[in-house]
Amino acid sequence: MRVNAYAAPAAGEPLAPTTIERRDVGPNDVLIEIQYAGICHSDIHTVNGDWGPQPFPVVPGHEIVGTVTEVGADVTKHRVGDRVGVGCLVNSCGECTNCRNGDEQYCLEGSVPTYAGTDRDGTTTQGGYSTHVVVDADFVLSVPAALDAAAATPLLCAGITTYAPLRKWGAGPGTKVAVVGLGGLGHMAVKIAHALGAEVTVLSQSLKKQEDGLRLGADDYYATSDPDTFKQLRGRYDLIINTVSAPIDADAYLGLLAVDGTLVNVGAPPEPLSLNVFSLIGARRSFAGSMIGGIALTQEMLDFCAEHQIGSEVEVIPVEQVNEAYERVLASDVRYRFVIDASTLS
Amino acid sequence: MRVNAYAAPAAGEPLAPTTIERRDVGPNDVLIEIQYAGICHSDIHTVNGDWGPQPFPVVPGHEIVGTVTEVGADVTKHRVGDRVGVGCLVNSCGECTNCRNGDEQYCLEGSVPTYAGTDRDGTTTQGGYSTHVVVDADFVLSVPAALDAAAATPLLCAGITTYAPLRKWGAGPGTKVAVVGLGGLGHMAVKIAHALGAEVTVLSQSLKKQEDGLRLGADDYYATSDPDTFKQLRGRYDLIINTVSAPIDADAYLGLLAVDGTLVNVGAPPEPLSLNVFSLIGARRSFAGSMIGGIALTQEMLDFCAEHQIGSEVEVIPVEQVNEAYERVLASDVRYRFVIDASTLS
Repeated sequence: MRVNAYAAPAAGEPLAPTTIERRDVGPNDVLIEIQYAGICHSDIHTVNGDWGPQPFPVVPGHEIVGTVTEVGADVTKHRVGDRVGVGCLVNSCGECTNCRNGDEQYCLEGSVPTYAGTDRDGTTTQGGYSTHVVVDADFVLSVPAALDAAAATPLLCAGITTYAPLRKWGAGPGTKVAVVGLGGLGHMAVKIAHALGAEVTVLSQSLKKQEDGLRLGADDYYATSDPDTFKQLRGRYDLIINTVSAPIDADAYLGLLAVDGTLVNVGAPPEPLSLNVFSLIGARRSFAGSMIGGIALTQEMLDFCAEHQIGSEVEVIPVEQVNEAYERVLASDVRYRFVIDASTLS
Repeated sequence: MRVNAYAAPAAGEPLAPTTIERRDVGPNDVLIEIQYAGICHSDIHTVNGDWGPQPFPVVPGHEIVGTVTEVGADVTKHRVGDRVGVGCLVNSCGECTNCRNGDEQYCLEGSVPTYAGTDRDGTTTQGGYSTHVVVDADFVLSVPAALDAAAATPLLCAGITTYAPLRKWGAGPGTKVAVVGLGGLGHMAVKIAHALGAEVTVLSQSLKKQEDGLRLGADDYYATSDPDTFKQLRGRYDLIINTVSAPIDADAYLGLLAVDGTLVNVGAPPEPLSLNVFSLIGARRSFAGSMIGGIALTQEMLDFCAEHQIGSEVEVIPVEQVNEAYERVLASDVRYRFVIDASTLS
């Protein structure tokens, strides 16, 4: 099946229209007609070659919402007409300890990313900036009807990336959570942490988005450019979710944690950080990292978001504006996620 | 009450005999006739001035076992004749969140160290290299009769420092624990982790102490000087306790952790470490720190050690050999802890 798509022909080059081949629908496959595809910062890193060589042409997109148009003979979980989603993963071995524990993203044989990855059959995966995609049913999520389709799209990456650490490190009533950075990931972290019942603080470079932050569910908003912030909030938080990929002063942020508190990075700066171990020992603190989340947890997150009426704040664009949107993401000029209307690809 | 002691008169100078004043026994105080005092690496750092200026003369010693010879009017927990112990802390505010949670070592008003600290009455604390000490009853531990007094002495610091993270991060049946460094702290970590039911590996610079390590309870022993160790053990451990205070290659050790694994530093190198956040994100790992433990947990540790017949491996010395012992500790020439026989101070 030959379908329309937008691909980066080579590292650093603008995305352009093309067609790609989608595989035949196998017994456990689902064919999805894509409705929306989110633009994640990772898409830009990948096509720019920031993360090393890629199998160009690359069709990015790992936040996908669409409608099932065909299912394989063995598929029972999804039916034609269902609204479904696909996130960052489309396959894994299914048998290693991590897969069996529901951590497919940490598959010991290597999980298969939604684009620019090598699938278990040896083919190269191509992402959601396309009209259709064929995905193994085990990696297809149900998107509850209570969610707006466009607003639900970024949940497949930005939602699960922040939901997973908030759940694992116990954000909830009685806990104090800080979110560093109010971008695509950060704004989801604020909404979800608030819905989980935590007291939420945004720590942003400036107070520029303060009004937004409070509207999204934050109880407090502080500028990290003000050194007083780090004195005033010292020892206050149980959990800090750092969504910023640029290197941070880890010791300064760790100092904001109470005893047993955890700083979790969901962004990964390419350069190593400097860390004074006293920052950890001084209050039995932890510095942790978390990468997206497993399939079962992603479904739990979608159901939670439906129950709490949480979507992403999105700006829907036609695919022709994708290169311009990339520029605006790099300039932090988006509140808070671009979503491509895939009907403009037809 | 004027008592004999050994003190460092100034930074870097050898310890020498002296006398010091112990306070009168207050209503909640316990007077202890000291039987043994352990030599901890911290003692050496402190008197050498490695950790900044100190209120010299300093009497070190925060691993103390002795006999109660007098109690204040309000003391109900300890009686004359009881065998008791004192660790790294002799006071705290008792009212802050951390104190109320049993984490007196993280008292928000500042816990009072057993020596070279300022007590809540403004006096300077002096440690266990002495014949007697007066301590608030709430900071006095019961040392079970099943424990040998000399072997129990290092439990008050080396024991609780390793027991606390092993308990907090769930070492037990079915878990794989690695201990980095087989010194005073490391050998206690091995014994305790083994008694808790974990599978224990020692990661030591060389295989020099391998026989010892296996005898103490380790199931495996690997040399970290061999690069193959880091390939062979990749992703294997649930918990790594790093007892080495010199800076380590944190990324290499984090790579040995399974998903959700934690590397806990109980030693604190003075220089900052370099850390690649991918080492954390790649398997939802944590890098944490832990400092001794609260009073209730220290009592739990002593009772656990009595039940499992765990003591430290000690070399008992007369106090006259303390300076020589310091040299030997610095040369890693002790298996595994020096303990001063305090009767040689009389």
